[in-house]
Amino acid sequence: MRFLGEGEARDGVVERAFDIRVEGRSVPGLLWTPAPEPSEAGRSRPLVLVGHGATLHKRVDHIVALARLLVAHGFAAAAVDAPGHGDRRADPAADEIQLFSTFLAEWSRPESTDEVVAELLAALAALRALDEVGDGPVGYWGLSMGTIYGIPLAAAEPRVQAAVFGLMGLLGPTAARLRADAAALACPVLFVQQWHDQLIPRADAFALFDAIGSLDKRLHAHPGLHSAVPPEELLASVDFLARHLAPGRASGGSPAATGRRPA
Amino acid sequence: MRFLGEGEARDGVVERAFDIRVEGRSVPGLLWTPAPEPSEAGRSRPLVLVGHGATLHKRVDHIVALARLLVAHGFAAAAVDAPGHGDRRADPAADEIQLFSTFLAEWSRPESTDEVVAELLAALAALRALDEVGDGPVGYWGLSMGTIYGIPLAAAEPRVQAAVFGLMGLLGPTAARLRADAAALACPVLFVQQWHDQLIPRADAFALFDAIGSLDKRLHAHPGLHSAVPPEELLASVDFLARHLAPGRASGGSPAATGRRPA
Repeated sequence: MRFLGEGEARDGVVERAFDIRVEGRSVPGLLWTPAPEPSEAGRSRPLVLVGHGATLHKRVDHIVALARLLVAHGFAAAAVDAPGHGDRRADPAADEIQLFSTFLAEWSRPESTDEVVAELLAALAALRALDEVGDGPVGYWGLSMGTIYGIPLAAAEPRVQAAVFGLMGLLGPTAARLRADAAALACPVLFVQQWHDQLIPRADAFALFDAIGSLDKRLHAHPGLHSAVPPEELLASVDFLARHLAPGRASGGSPAATGRRPA
Repeated sequence: MRFLGEGEARDGVVERAFDIRVEGRSVPGLLWTPAPEPSEAGRSRPLVLVGHGATLHKRVDHIVALARLLVAHGFAAAAVDAPGHGDRRADPAADEIQLFSTFLAEWSRPESTDEVVAELLAALAALRALDEVGDGPVGYWGLSMGTIYGIPLAAAEPRVQAAVFGLMGLLGPTAARLRADAAALACPVLFVQQWHDQLIPRADAFALFDAIGSLDKRLHAHPGLHSAVPPEELLASVDFLARHLAPGRASGGSPAATGRRPA
């Protein structure tokens, strides 16, 4: 793993570009950490890996916003470009339709999931070896394509102790793999759904939510199309990840008694 | 409206029992407010009316917990006993089965919804006339039976500016009324659902969520039976109500930019 350039600090958040080699492939990524304070040297912090959606890349606005919110909790956040996306585009001038067709071709290639999981595992290992990250608990956040690869990652990496998935269902070329990997999950899950998703039929989304083996899971649905997830769910994601990855530090109390029968 | 006794203060929360007369009926209730600070005299605060579930009453644990969390935000909270429940039981020794059958009989009586709405409107008017509450914005929280009466209340009372409903569907003797009143709603709604609710079929719950006219609505679902709503949703309810009834005072920032395409 090597860092590219010096990184950039803004409002207490340091953003650094990096690159790792995985099975001969070059995987570009970004790491966000709190601006260093001498007293914190060598202390490990939770790391949240963020997976972007199809046609997007590691530095779209909602990923930067999410990363900055996580860093405000003292966490580290990182994102890498998926195959054919961002700095890995074959044609930098490709439009959204070409990028989506690249995604579909990649999704249909039997080796794709294992290759991406290998990249994400390598990124996690490299990042957790850094002094400014350390071997703290790991979280994952990824919707749509970020769920297609994120569920297999979480099934393969027991260090993932909380995950946000969604905008996906039991469908497509890897549906069987998704079902099996979802069943193997044990960590707390927040599943984000768009009520009028034009790409993912409601029943398929519910089937994926049902397939998730974790006993501690919840589904949050909002009206609107696939890509209209509201900012509220970014905030809910951060609360959820903070609660599970740093329970001692999370804000908000637990009600003393909540009763057993709201019926 | 008259207060019964002096009230009780604990950890900064004052709880007072009251009673109002509505159409000849005596309606007992509880009001929770922050312990008075001289500097706050005469300042109005948001008021959240809480509706309990069938067989329960105005002072079950989860209502007290919710009220105390709301008061910690500087809000007032109130709950009244529904007909046949709590201090309005015909037989104080009635068991849960008798109470549920009383609820069903009441639900089937055509005048029931209008009568309860009249009681809730009277309670709101009396409470908002108090110096320690004032004419601030109104919120509503009620699941199951609390939704059966809460949706008609919110449709009748435009002062309700945020509401938490759930554990109910388009079913039962008032399904048509519920559908019409849900369609008339315009305020932000959080709809709480139990994924394995043994009383409310999933499709009926979705139909009620779909019927809600508010553009700003969200559904939160958790695994488990009807009465297993987790404490997490009490906290989410309080965050939701605080965000909408006191936006300037609510905690938690809004991400600067969230992007448009998480796909």
